[in-house]
Amino acid sequence: MTAGTTIAAPKCDPTPPGTGRHLHSFVSELYPICRSITGNGLRETLRRIGEKIPVQIHEVPSGSQVFDWTVPREWNIRDAYVKNSRGDRVLDFRRSNLHVVNYSVPIRKTVSLCELKEHLHSLPAHPDWIPYRTSYYRDTWGFCVSQKVLDALPEGNYEAVIDSSLEEGHLSYGEFLLPGETQEEILVSTHCCHPSLCNDNLSGIAVATFLAKALSGQPRRYSYRFLFIPGTIGSITWLSRNEPIAQRIKHGLVLACLGDRGGFSYKKSRRGNAEIDRVVWHLLSHSQEAFKIRDFSPYGHDERQYCSPSFNLPVGCLNRTSHGEFSEYHTSADNLDFVSEEALAGSLQFCLDICDVLESNRTYRNTNPKCEPQLGKRGLYRELGGQTDSEAREMAMLWVLNLSDGENSLLDIAERSGVAFGAIRQAATSLAQHGLLAP
Amino acid sequence: MTAGTTIAAPKCDPTPPGTGRHLHSFVSELYPICRSITGNGLRETLRRIGEKIPVQIHEVPSGSQVFDWTVPREWNIRDAYVKNSRGDRVLDFRRSNLHVVNYSVPIRKTVSLCELKEHLHSLPAHPDWIPYRTSYYRDTWGFCVSQKVLDALPEGNYEAVIDSSLEEGHLSYGEFLLPGETQEEILVSTHCCHPSLCNDNLSGIAVATFLAKALSGQPRRYSYRFLFIPGTIGSITWLSRNEPIAQRIKHGLVLACLGDRGGFSYKKSRRGNAEIDRVVWHLLSHSQEAFKIRDFSPYGHDERQYCSPSFNLPVGCLNRTSHGEFSEYHTSADNLDFVSEEALAGSLQFCLDICDVLESNRTYRNTNPKCEPQLGKRGLYRELGGQTDSEAREMAMLWVLNLSDGENSLLDIAERSGVAFGAIRQAATSLAQHGLLAP
Amino acid sequence: MTAGTTIAAPKCDPTPPGTGRHLHSFVSELYPICRSITGNGLRETLRRIGEKIPVQIHEVPSGSQVFDWTVPREWNIRDAYVKNSRGDRVLDFRRSNLHVVNYSVPIRKTVSLCELKEHLHSLPAHPDWIPYRTSYYRDTWGFCVSQKVLDALPEGNYEAVIDSSLEEGHLSYGEFLLPGETQEEILVSTHCCHPSLCNDNLSGIAVATFLAKALSGQPRRYSYRFLFIPGTIGSITWLSRNEPIAQRIKHGLVLACLGDRGGFSYKKSRRGNAEIDRVVWHLLSHSQEAFKIRDFSPYGHDERQYCSPSFNLPVGCLNRTSHGEFSEYHTSADNLDFVSEEALAGSLQFCLDICDVLESNRTYRNTNPKCEPQLGKRGLYRELGGQTDSEAREMAMLWVLNLSDGENSLLDIAERSGVAFGAIRQAATSLAQHGLLAP
Repeated sequence: MTAGTTIAAPKCDPTPPGTGRHLHSFVSELYPICRSITGNGLRETLRRIGEKIPVQIHEVPSGSQVFDWTVPREWNIRDAYVKNSRGDRVLDFRRSNLHVVNYSVPIRKTVSLCELKEHLHSLPAHPDWIPYRTSYYRDTWGFCVSQKVLDALPEGNYEAVIDSSLEEGHLSYGEFLLPGETQEEILVSTHCCHPSLCNDNLSGIAVATFLAKALSGQPRRYSYRFLFIPGTIGSITWLSRNEPIAQRIKHGLVLACLGDRGGFSYKKSRRGNAEIDRVVWHLLSHSQEAFKIRDFSPYGHDERQYCSPSFNLPVGCLNRTSHGEFSEYHTSADNLDFVSEEALAGSLQFCLDICDVLESNRTYRNTNPKCEPQLGKRGLYRELGGQTDSEAREMAMLWVLNLSDGENSLLDIAERSGVAFGAIRQAATSLAQHGLLAP
Repeated sequence: MTAGTTIAAPKCDPTPPGTGRHLHSFVSELYPICRSITGNGLRETLRRIGEKIPVQIHEVPSGSQVFDWTVPREWNIRDAYVKNSRGDRVLDFRRSNLHVVNYSVPIRKTVSLCELKEHLHSLPAHPDWIPYRTSYYRDTWGFCVSQKVLDALPEGNYEAVIDSSLEEGHLSYGEFLLPGETQEEILVSTHCCHPSLCNDNLSGIAVATFLAKALSGQPRRYSYRFLFIPGTIGSITWLSRNEPIAQRIKHGLVLACLGDRGGFSYKKSRRGNAEIDRVVWHLLSHSQEAFKIRDFSPYGHDERQYCSPSFNLPVGCLNRTSHGEFSEYHTSADNLDFVSEEALAGSLQFCLDICDVLESNRTYRNTNPKCEPQLGKRGLYRELGGQTDSEAREMAMLWVLNLSDGENSLLDIAERSGVAFGAIRQAATSLAQHGLLAP
Repeated sequence: MTAGTTIAAPKCDPTPPGTGRHLHSFVSELYPICRSITGNGLRETLRRIGEKIPVQIHEVPSGSQVFDWTVPREWNIRDAYVKNSRGDRVLDFRRSNLHVVNYSVPIRKTVSLCELKEHLHSLPAHPDWIPYRTSYYRDTWGFCVSQKVLDALPEGNYEAVIDSSLEEGHLSYGEFLLPGETQEEILVSTHCCHPSLCNDNLSGIAVATFLAKALSGQPRRYSYRFLFIPGTIGSITWLSRNEPIAQRIKHGLVLACLGDRGGFSYKKSRRGNAEIDRVVWHLLSHSQEAFKIRDFSPYGHDERQYCSPSFNLPVGCLNRTSHGEFSEYHTSADNLDFVSEEALAGSLQFCLDICDVLESNRTYRNTNPKCEPQLGKRGLYRELGGQTDSEAREMAMLWVLNLSDGENSLLDIAERSGVAFGAIRQAATSLAQHGLLAP
């Protein structure tokens, strides 16, 4: 019989060599674009993702009501600078899009140094870095600048120019549904609203894109929904337009900050013991790497919205080093050097491992529940008794048989036995092939 | 709107300066009185309490059946002494009422030193201290004496006189009901049967009296019932006469040993996770002081009766250093110096804090449960994004919004978030004022 | 009244002096017999047990289907040896029955050393020891030999002779039911299939036999069922023939490896919190000895079958040092010196203690549940109050009174209070004698 192959899908192939390079290359491609929660930079980013996977781009008009929020005007920017009295650009948007406070209103004004300073943001603790600042919901303007440059500005008049527009337009987001055998969905959500910042969150965008690509090529029990959205307003917009679909989401991950060299950090869903929480915990605890598991808190990325009380979706958040725990966070130091090929590839592989466990975590029934079945006559047991070396393979089979009373999933069995899920699944496959296990 | 003010009552004012002095002064006033489980000393103590709060004094006749117990005869004492052959009072009730075994039958007898010693109690380990002994339910007589005095008694005859009476009379107790918006009650019980012992339990009497006084001056959701009772027989008597009222008790505290310089010690109710248990735990764990939480045991003060199986009331016991954990316990060293103004004031304040949390611990409903509401447009959120300093005030609001699904009280939210109850309540007040939270 | 004596049976007498000697002597008597999962050695062992307790011997024909298994052919052996070219027996079954792989098919063959070695098993790490090997379910033959002897065998031809038979016959097992007041049963199961190995499991056989004998002489609430069975196939056979009886089993113990000098090790039932699990844990945690409690796993002795998913019986496994944790396990070093009189007697006593707690673990009702009853007037309380030495006896009574609300068994009370079961039972007896406690 071939039931075994349908019961527990073979573990997906490991990511092919070169994957890390391709991921980093995609990060590099997207790095120069000035993104925001709306506008052409975001649109262009979605277009580039669309070159890799058939993502659908949605455009939601400014002014649309999305629950308690309103889709804002669309922001676009062409140029921005501060010129000194000699006409030199002392701050130049073309050199770094972080120099402009994101969502700054247009300005063209000559100001004294004193007045200019009221609109400058810097990081005294990191004098070489440019901070990243936004002002989405209050009309203002400003520049971000390294402390060093700030300190060197002489008295005098400056010309401050921001050639931006803040007008009725659209909020753009990308959506890609990869259908599976069932309509039950796994959600993968990643925010695409930050300008030239690599770990936060070109790393998440790249990993999500390549994850979609990799899953396209393998059998799927679940359907997978990928969302490439501006943070907060994007997930709120999607949820407000897709309430019935949200109910199909059985597991979900928000991906962010996945390119730095730190170990994995997972923030549990609001439920705290959802299957996704248990799967990630199981895999991390059986890995050889350091990791962190954090309880849910209502601060962070878009899991805040997915886990709001009316939705309460089983969505966790996967990072390497979490926001606020690395000093490069939201500064110009979160650049192409800060993210590594190896880290990006490892993050992709871990996401694939998570999906793999979710795909194959099922509950079986021991067809022979009264005493143990005789494994030996089926060639499943060592033939010569009395050897003191216990066999991991046999132990996994015995655990699966003992706990498969219809109440325990393979993950439950892995957790109770302390045996890795992979070994439990392999045992289940063998037993099913011999008719000792049924769905 | 003004909903916020009704939703979460403002935290009560801290105890005014001088409170510690007033508490200690009340302890000093009551110190000389010779109390017992019945009699005029107890009655006089209740009268003095009545000068501060309108306590009602109940008199229950000797011989009344109270559950398995019988109200004992009333004990009164006028004088007692042991005179040596020269007629000197070597033990004198007028110098310390601890010298007489409480509830001693009247005696007037000349005895040899040898026979006298059979009726003397001392503490060899603390040769300067007089122990405190009682014999409520067996007719006997005796004197308590410091080891030093005992050792110095020469051979010879002694005149032992106890001018007491043990006759049909009454058991007295005080009761004060402070009505609130609802008939649900918070019980505060304190024992008043010990003679000149300060920590055990003039401290409890003083704190309870001043607590009643302080609560009188503020709005109350709960009604508060204060019991000033002789230990054991008093709570049994009250319970036997007030079974229906006992069912209204939603939370309760036995107050004892609250004047010494130790940190707080709380013994949980028999239920172990009653709201009172959780409130005290929460406040202590957020305090900067050392503290102890002990599981319920059926030995201690009157919580033994309130937590007997048929009542099983949610009543814990609050002490600083618990009975049996300080060597001065039940000795003459538990005197006016052993209790401090600061400790008494701190105990009162802590009781007020407990009541304050109980009063304002309610369950709300997020009126906007689908995704987060936009706090910014209501002025509840920092306006410039990207700052890495997280704001405690915002976090508290996000927690309240996320968990206010109708299932979680403010205390539940405080416990899960790790945020102090006060900050959670403040957040709830703000949110309610903006219509984002409803009862 | 005499209710107390029926409520809590007096703790059984400790094992009389000389018990350890008698246990060890029984082990010695059974030691030379060559047992297997079937055959005359097993039968003879059951006959010897029958000389001590009236065990019933069942014979189940070869070929009988027992769930997924088939009762195997019966194996008997008369002689076996390997002779060198000079005709000397270099390996001789008559010197140790471990020399023959248990269940070897008959063989009479002259073989080269090279061919012989394919059928020899040794333990290089313990060159003096003979390993124990079996081949129940695959027809083969072999010899076990110390590494030293193996290394000394010169080249040449050898005569290998196993004078065994493997024929239709029976599987034998012993069963002894000791009826009690109720049909609810305590199962004691021990495996009898190993040849000359003392700890595994003549120790279990001896302890079970003497336990049956000791329990015969005392009043019993429970019925006790003792099974003396070959491992695995024996418990499967019994379960397949006694499904309805299995449902009467309320508690059970598999006894094995109880003669070595190690502390107790208890493996919990699959349920994990069955009464037997809690009883053993309670007794061990109140003992002064080191011990181990292990979670259930589906590998070990016959608890594997009793705890298979359809039965899921509350059966744990009691050992001193567990299989696989002592290097003498399944070797000739598990001999008469490896087991001690003291260890055997201690194991028997511990089994009696377990039964004792199970027998007397009942749930009572405080007949006076409103406040404490007045213990003093019944002579159950110290008469002079104020003494600071707390009395363990009184505490135990207060705990029993407080928790006997019909929900808590004496074991529950012992666990919550931290007081030893024996003291809790004694308190219950006193209280029942005074009518303060009812079943």
